[in-house]
Amino acid sequence: MKLLFIGDVTGSPGREMVRRYLPRLQETYHPNMTIINGENAAAGKGMTQKIYKQLLEWGANVITMGNHTWDKKEIFEFIDDANNLIRPANFPADTPGKGMAFVNINGTEVAVINGQGRTFLPAIDDPFRKMDELIAAAKKRTNIIFVDFHAEATSEKQAMGWYLDGKVSAVAGTHTHVQTADNRLLPKGTAYITDVGMTGPYDAILGMEKESVLRKFLTSLPVRFEIDKNGRAQLNGLLVTINEKTGHATDIERIMINDDHPFFS
Amino acid sequence: MKLLFIGDVTGSPGREMVRRYLPRLQETYHPNMTIINGENAAAGKGMTQKIYKQLLEWGANVITMGNHTWDKKEIFEFIDDANNLIRPANFPADTPGKGMAFVNINGTEVAVINGQGRTFLPAIDDPFRKMDELIAAAKKRTNIIFVDFHAEATSEKQAMGWYLDGKVSAVAGTHTHVQTADNRLLPKGTAYITDVGMTGPYDAILGMEKESVLRKFLTSLPVRFEIDKNGRAQLNGLLVTINEKTGHATDIERIMINDDHPFFS
Amino acid sequence: MKLLFIGDVTGSPGREMVRRYLPRLQETYHPNMTIINGENAAAGKGMTQKIYKQLLEWGANVITMGNHTWDKKEIFEFIDDANNLIRPANFPADTPGKGMAFVNINGTEVAVINGQGRTFLPAIDDPFRKMDELIAAAKKRTNIIFVDFHAEATSEKQAMGWYLDGKVSAVAGTHTHVQTADNRLLPKGTAYITDVGMTGPYDAILGMEKESVLRKFLTSLPVRFEIDKNGRAQLNGLLVTINEKTGHATDIERIMINDDHPFFS
Amino acid sequence: MKLLFIGDVTGSPGREMVRRYLPRLQETYHPNMTIINGENAAAGKGMTQKIYKQLLEWGANVITMGNHTWDKKEIFEFIDDANNLIRPANFPADTPGKGMAFVNINGTEVAVINGQGRTFLPAIDDPFRKMDELIAAAKKRTNIIFVDFHAEATSEKQAMGWYLDGKVSAVAGTHTHVQTADNRLLPKGTAYITDVGMTGPYDAILGMEKESVLRKFLTSLPVRFEIDKNGRAQLNGLLVTINEKTGHATDIERIMINDDHPFFS
Ligand SMILES: [Fe+2]
Ligand SMILES: [Fe+2]
Ligand SMILES: [Fe+2]
Ligand SMILES: [Fe+2]
Ligand SMILES: [Fe+2]
Ligand SMILES: [Fe+2]
Ligand SMILES: [Fe+2]
Ligand SMILES: [Fe+2]
Repeated sequence: MKLLFIGDVTGSPGREMVRRYLPRLQETYHPNMTIINGENAAAGKGMTQKIYKQLLEWGANVITMGNHTWDKKEIFEFIDDANNLIRPANFPADTPGKGMAFVNINGTEVAVINGQGRTFLPAIDDPFRKMDELIAAAKKRTNIIFVDFHAEATSEKQAMGWYLDGKVSAVAGTHTHVQTADNRLLPKGTAYITDVGMTGPYDAILGMEKESVLRKFLTSLPVRFEIDKNGRAQLNGLLVTINEKTGHATDIERIMINDDHPFFS
Repeated sequence: MKLLFIGDVTGSPGREMVRRYLPRLQETYHPNMTIINGENAAAGKGMTQKIYKQLLEWGANVITMGNHTWDKKEIFEFIDDANNLIRPANFPADTPGKGMAFVNINGTEVAVINGQGRTFLPAIDDPFRKMDELIAAAKKRTNIIFVDFHAEATSEKQAMGWYLDGKVSAVAGTHTHVQTADNRLLPKGTAYITDVGMTGPYDAILGMEKESVLRKFLTSLPVRFEIDKNGRAQLNGLLVTINEKTGHATDIERIMINDDHPFFS
Repeated sequence: MKLLFIGDVTGSPGREMVRRYLPRLQETYHPNMTIINGENAAAGKGMTQKIYKQLLEWGANVITMGNHTWDKKEIFEFIDDANNLIRPANFPADTPGKGMAFVNINGTEVAVINGQGRTFLPAIDDPFRKMDELIAAAKKRTNIIFVDFHAEATSEKQAMGWYLDGKVSAVAGTHTHVQTADNRLLPKGTAYITDVGMTGPYDAILGMEKESVLRKFLTSLPVRFEIDKNGRAQLNGLLVTINEKTGHATDIERIMINDDHPFFS
Repeated sequence: MKLLFIGDVTGSPGREMVRRYLPRLQETYHPNMTIINGENAAAGKGMTQKIYKQLLEWGANVITMGNHTWDKKEIFEFIDDANNLIRPANFPADTPGKGMAFVNINGTEVAVINGQGRTFLPAIDDPFRKMDELIAAAKKRTNIIFVDFHAEATSEKQAMGWYLDGKVSAVAGTHTHVQTADNRLLPKGTAYITDVGMTGPYDAILGMEKESVLRKFLTSLPVRFEIDKNGRAQLNGLLVTINEKTGHATDIERIMINDDHPFFS
């Protein structure tokens, strides 16, 4: 089974890249399933029902989120009915939504889990113990488990990779918006990458207009960050191949599309 | 001019990788100059005079540091005489050592600057204004300026890249110990990468035994991290090609050596 | 010389307490001068020109600020003309406004300095070195120097107290919104208190409706904090007596007005 | 029932203050029970079995801890047998020791709970939900419940006070080492203070030699903090009076002993 994962889709430039390249990626690589991190899909902050549906229409099977899950208030109205939208599982008890989704791909069940780190991020529940709990539940239904671990610190992300090695099919990091080059198969069969990177503005800072972010660093004054809509865009993703029987990964390839790395199908 | 940069050399496994592969890298790529980030060279924490000299003997022209600069106390005894050792320039006034070094490569002068970020790191002086100051001084002597920006947050590192675009030859990030895949030439001629990655243990967490780091995340108890000395090792680096006249970069290539990416010369 | 200082005035309940009790405090204690920290005066966040003028009319000689200085955008329009309004002096170079003001009290000049800590707060310029610089400038005009050090960590505030002992008349902490009981005269003549406390809602959390803050701690969801306008209010302040000749303090008394500590004149 | 609580006892100067003043405080106020926060009792960091026994001999009924619980390694050897020693209850599952102790005071049972905040402190389990759980268990045995909430941020401490108002007898904050002046009875019957303060060196920074802490703030270099053993010392504490039937507090008084506030019995 081939699984395509697209990193933090950011604003309309990010959504446009998905609309444009997702069909071509599917034609080229024939993934059985597509997962998209959408925590920044709505103007850089959060998700709307319209965009959620759009991403599914364009071919996504599951949407994962992160620390920006709640930035658009309307999510509280549709998250509990959005079967294919998950937010970090280790948010406190009674948080709306869920942290794991199952999808049936031609008769094969796949579990997708979203978690969030705590280093340099708000103090929420322990992501490691929460993973144990969810994986135990998932294993009753399937061996194919994909984890989007949304975290800042490379130490916490590598720790999660090693912690879950052999227990899940893949641990893919998100949140830093920069793709790392350390994609690898860990010894016990789990595909790992520290960060998949982001999908959106290419000549910007994490997707935001660089002038505004620079102004923040230089002045410490309040600055409103806006999506950089005038520049070029990029798409960052991941392609994981999984042995359906064992649930172990057999390949993990990075996908990077931008003017310096044009897409050739 | 070709410039080779090797990311955070960590403990004896990292030094062993330098000893073993630096000659081969030099044979293969013929860099005119080699810079090594050595903040973790001595048992994962800091630098000794012996290791400093060793790295120079093995072919390094300049050693850069970071937040671990002072971990080995003996550095206070030799840093002021170590011409080719630099620590982050934006440490407070009167800090021992210096933040910029000039080296003469066959008659061509090259400035190397070390800076440190402040996001998720201790509050020190403003790295952006300090760069302005040092670059103004460097420009009186040369257009070829290499910056090792030691920082945690991808936003701060991208911000520094865009801030210095056109003013320096290269901005290479260090500190997260994970190589990023975003090496590129910025529009005004500066080579940029968010993080070069580390040189040392490969089956570890940032170079430390993974069991100990995992124990920390799972228990929050005090844990002593030790260099993982029993596993495989890796080397991460960067090759930047610079137009000597303009000081602008014309190419930036990542170097990654590990069992999944063996080195073929 | 007697100096009255009123801690973080928060929203309309805080302003109402100043309007109501400042005249009575002046009648009772006859301070020669009144300083008010006003960083939260406008709806809990920032300062408007109208409120600034009102506070002066009610009897303040100088208004100090803090990390909320810029929360109301209109401050950028009047801060450079507001002679008696100061913001933390160690904000980056070129920040609008100023960090020190001089006032003439019946022929005696008094310098008031505002600084901000960096522990658990944004990385700005070094407050210790900035104090050295401003105190050197102030000393050319007067020995009477009052410092409002706006900071979170007790360690950094105590450090500033000891650092300035003997150099200034008083170091009064603000920002935590809770009055500390450690007011004292340090050995070399500087009056010190870790935090003066706040002026505003009494049955709230730092002045904000307690239900909303609790919801934040319990859910980690985005919560909009509003000033608690329905409950009782409090005023917290400080009275420092200074030897005009030496600039040393001879007394430091806490002021606390609330239903548990009613004001008797 | 009267309950005496002594804030963070720090190093030998702190222990000496307990030895010297605890008998006098007991003679003067006749508390039925004494609780001591001892997280810094052993050289400023942690607890030894010898000191634990000494504090009990001197009259303590329960010792509470905090973020420094594990600083002295020998605690792992005796904590599980130390009936009257508690550490923050919201440390992760399987942490050695316990977070609640019951003591029998002349036939009346008292529950003492230790919790730790997460703002500006390591990410551990949710202290609010953990309190719910422990209080439910305690209520089966007694209405008299004392909470030492070890936390940095005034917001989190006030939030805990309001959260537990009416559910416990007292919420006393520790950790900042500075006594606050906001001791009060909350409307539903819980005694509250943001921080009790510390017991130890008086002319120091949080108990540590001020020169060393200042050097840290000024240089950002590694500095070893030592207990200030040559200066004067202080004791900070709290006296809470509780209605044994309802478990509600009827009085909360601060205790402060130092050269500026000498103790008169
Ligand atoms: Fe994101
Ligand atoms: Fe994120
Ligand atoms: Fe490093
Ligand atoms: Fe580092
Ligand atoms: Fe404030
Ligand atoms: Fe503040
Ligand atoms: Fe303490
Ligand atoms: Fe503590």
